[in-house]
Amino acid sequence: MSAKNQQIEQLIQLLSKMPGLGPRSSRRAVLQIIKKKESYMLPLATLLKDVANGIKSCKVCGNLDTVSPCGVCQNPKRDPSIICVVEDVSDLWALERTASYKGLYHVLGGTLSAVQGIRPEDLNIEKLVERAKAKETSEIILATNATVDGQTTAHYIIERLKEIPVNITAIAHGVPIGGELDYLDDGTLSAALRDRKPF
Amino acid sequence: MSAKNQQIEQLIQLLSKMPGLGPRSSRRAVLQIIKKKESYMLPLATLLKDVANGIKSCKVCGNLDTVSPCGVCQNPKRDPSIICVVEDVSDLWALERTASYKGLYHVLGGTLSAVQGIRPEDLNIEKLVERAKAKETSEIILATNATVDGQTTAHYIIERLKEIPVNITAIAHGVPIGGELDYLDDGTLSAALRDRKPF
Repeated sequence: MSAKNQQIEQLIQLLSKMPGLGPRSSRRAVLQIIKKKESYMLPLATLLKDVANGIKSCKVCGNLDTVSPCGVCQNPKRDPSIICVVEDVSDLWALERTASYKGLYHVLGGTLSAVQGIRPEDLNIEKLVERAKAKETSEIILATNATVDGQTTAHYIIERLKEIPVNITAIAHGVPIGGELDYLDDGTLSAALRDRKPF
Repeated sequence: MSAKNQQIEQLIQLLSKMPGLGPRSSRRAVLQIIKKKESYMLPLATLLKDVANGIKSCKVCGNLDTVSPCGVCQNPKRDPSIICVVEDVSDLWALERTASYKGLYHVLGGTLSAVQGIRPEDLNIEKLVERAKAKETSEIILATNATVDGQTTAHYIIERLKEIPVNITAIAHGVPIGGELDYLDDGTLSAALRDRKPF
């Protein structure tokens, strides 16, 4: 018979599968949150349930929201002629934090990957092609990550969209703001030099 | 209007207060678990609620369990004559993992601390004195941490128990198993040398 209650044991095991927590930190976390039942555990339980039951993927762009089409797609202040293509919802959030983009989004749900066996039909690409064909769409901005898989996916999308009369652009790669040349990798420096622009 | 749903935002904020997670890892975690609604989020929500509603502090020893007295205190196979005093439930769990102790426990719920203003009446010490006075109790093992606060607390308890006819012992301090002398701090080495024993 273990001194640890079975429910606590289960909770520790479940929490240890949370990204960022391991078995040891999960044990510590459970002991800490048990001390805050009313103020933390019960609200967290309710919220987890509500989000799990209420959140869906936007049928237009793939963003997560309680409504579909999502808040961004429904917002009349957003410019429906520009669509920014991102890999994941976290990238959409990152772009929204800048508050400098006013168009719509399209979430692919990952990248093509030969290693992980992710093919075009596993991603939200068909719907992007449809949206690109729509009359109101004038520009598609590719904002996949600057990784091998991200760039492969971008090139695949360019290939798919080449018959469609829409402008395709990609976010700029170069020296990050605050970055020092000496500490940057060669790839970034080469890209920054190649994509130089008149001052 | 934010692109992030308000419920998701709340969940990220709440999760970021979980020990071990910060705002960034919490955001990542929420996106990951939203993909596993049925297999992870809903079971976690249920378990959090059950534990929050069901777990109480054992009225005898301070352990956490759904029953009070707890599983350890109720177990007829445990030796009720020995009580091991620990700071926190996590220490009780650590000792139980060794499977080498068959007595009962007493959880103090912390240590005396001048800095944090924790006084004897804030800890579960009165009940320990009562338990020490009980006829069946023959030994009290002090297993507070080998920190300044832990040892201060141990000395305070020794002082409180000195009129009571019960054996007081403390767990050994010394070189940890697998430890190399060269890498140990001076305090541990001095303790190991002082507490040497015949081979």
